[in-house]
Amino acid sequence: MHVLVIGAAGMLGRKLAERIAADSGLFGCDIDRVTLADVIRPPVPAGLAGIARAIALDLGEDGAAGTLIAQRPDLIFHLAAIVSGEAEADFGKGYRVNLDGSRLLFEAIRAEGLRQPYCPRLVFTSSIAVFGAPFPDRIGDEFLSAPLTSYGTQKAICELLLADYSRRGLFDGIGLRLPTICIRPGRPNKAASGFFSNILREPLNGEEAILPVDDSVRHWFASPRAAIGFFIHAARLDLARLGPRRTLSMPGLSATVGEEIEALGRLAGEKAVRLIRREPDPAIARIVASWPADFDTQRATALGFRAESGFDQLIRAHIDDELGGRI
Amino acid sequence: MHVLVIGAAGMLGRKLAERIAADSGLFGCDIDRVTLADVIRPPVPAGLAGIARAIALDLGEDGAAGTLIAQRPDLIFHLAAIVSGEAEADFGKGYRVNLDGSRLLFEAIRAEGLRQPYCPRLVFTSSIAVFGAPFPDRIGDEFLSAPLTSYGTQKAICELLLADYSRRGLFDGIGLRLPTICIRPGRPNKAASGFFSNILREPLNGEEAILPVDDSVRHWFASPRAAIGFFIHAARLDLARLGPRRTLSMPGLSATVGEEIEALGRLAGEKAVRLIRREPDPAIARIVASWPADFDTQRATALGFRAESGFDQLIRAHIDDELGGRI
Repeated sequence: MHVLVIGAAGMLGRKLAERIAADSGLFGCDIDRVTLADVIRPPVPAGLAGIARAIALDLGEDGAAGTLIAQRPDLIFHLAAIVSGEAEADFGKGYRVNLDGSRLLFEAIRAEGLRQPYCPRLVFTSSIAVFGAPFPDRIGDEFLSAPLTSYGTQKAICELLLADYSRRGLFDGIGLRLPTICIRPGRPNKAASGFFSNILREPLNGEEAILPVDDSVRHWFASPRAAIGFFIHAARLDLARLGPRRTLSMPGLSATVGEEIEALGRLAGEKAVRLIRREPDPAIARIVASWPADFDTQRATALGFRAESGFDQLIRAHIDDELGGRI
Repeated sequence: MHVLVIGAAGMLGRKLAERIAADSGLFGCDIDRVTLADVIRPPVPAGLAGIARAIALDLGEDGAAGTLIAQRPDLIFHLAAIVSGEAEADFGKGYRVNLDGSRLLFEAIRAEGLRQPYCPRLVFTSSIAVFGAPFPDRIGDEFLSAPLTSYGTQKAICELLLADYSRRGLFDGIGLRLPTICIRPGRPNKAASGFFSNILREPLNGEEAILPVDDSVRHWFASPRAAIGFFIHAARLDLARLGPRRTLSMPGLSATVGEEIEALGRLAGEKAVRLIRREPDPAIARIVASWPADFDTQRATALGFRAESGFDQLIRAHIDDELGGRI
């Protein structure tokens, strides 16, 4: 089996490559070839030496997708995108990378299939940004995609293309709308959602973190570990069970900032909690208020996708996976 | 005011041009220039002599949209598309015309606005084909777009683009999901939905028509006259009232084939009804069963869009508009 990961230099792409390195039977049959692609040359985990190839390319450029697809990978993870803030700041770039890049990939697969029958599995990462306020209290599986950002628009369009190409038998696609990933490893970044991770990760490292919103703010979370679990499950699932609606909102944990902080206190003590400094930022509070806070993910749950059920679990996953099990 | 109609050679495009010819104050301020564009040179109604220009061009070709937009029309009706059957039969052509054509138009408007501030009103015709089974009994304003055809996919994508370009202030857009137009004037065609019109239009002309489905089949209708009314209302409406969700399911009439036939009997007598020949066609019955049959169009109704409320009205509109008021 030949696995292609596009967006392999990103946080989830790297974790996925590491999981593949740790278990070559991960997707049910032996992985004998891995291609890791991104705009910068992705790292190759030590365990994949000999079977993995790392490629730097821009999917939005002519011929790039064709180069990848000419190798006829059996399983494709398409995680590549520029983030919400950048897609909002640069209209043209957002559409070029997030929409045209995906479409060029889908078209390259179609073109390869016209040459010689070919129908790879394609796992696409979408986002809860396809949803825009006003929301119901819990967003169900039949709620409309009415995004309020260009990023969300681009993801919603890719979902539609994914369904149509899959319906036509051009590939066997599944889209996963990921919750906000928490705890995101690494350093604090400037994303408006960054504080959800910062207020846990930094205190766990003995460092201060800034909380710009009220404790009552509710949001929708899954750990990086849960996200990798979604990818693996999506790669193995019989997609005929999805019917024509090929994108699913992934399960997650709906929790308030206050609940995050309580879990931190339980696992790391009051000393950690005291490292959170409250600095209300009305601009961030306004942005966050327009985000979905809770989902009813019946379809994904019935299909066997699983996420954390409490913030303690989510923090534990971070301690185990990023801090060697100790704080 | 300069009005541009793209798709002006089609049935609705021609009717719209005729309405503009009959009333130069139709959109609230004087129309002093009209551009009629289509892949074939559209007819120019006599009343528009002197102010209208007819152009044959393919919106999907490089530079075509730019040629139209360089004239900076104030109001744009974008009705151009290839139909569902053709988009399904020719995957590449459907995406080129229905998706890329629209996107090139939107991008030409954005490019013109970068040269010199420009924000035209844009009225886009979408379709109930953006919805795919399974449906609720009545499709509400928050039901998801999950199309089951490439045509529906292309329309749903254009709706998303329309909303994002409007949100960004690149144009002031509104999308209208039209019901099935009935009675469609002209000769019977091979569209799967053709019989809904054929079984009324042909008997009104004293000719036989074939009914391939059961009398109990329910569907969603509006007359050509109602559709033109939607366009005019959309062109005059304050679109700030729409908020970010820029496409609306238009009001219509939910009725069964049996109700159609009863109305025909009331208006044209049993002689007309006897001209309907029942020839069940399981293939057509299957296609029609996958179509939406009823909508709850609260948003459009609250914004003042109006359609027929019974099949008698719908047949009367045809008799008045196509048959000179007499049968």
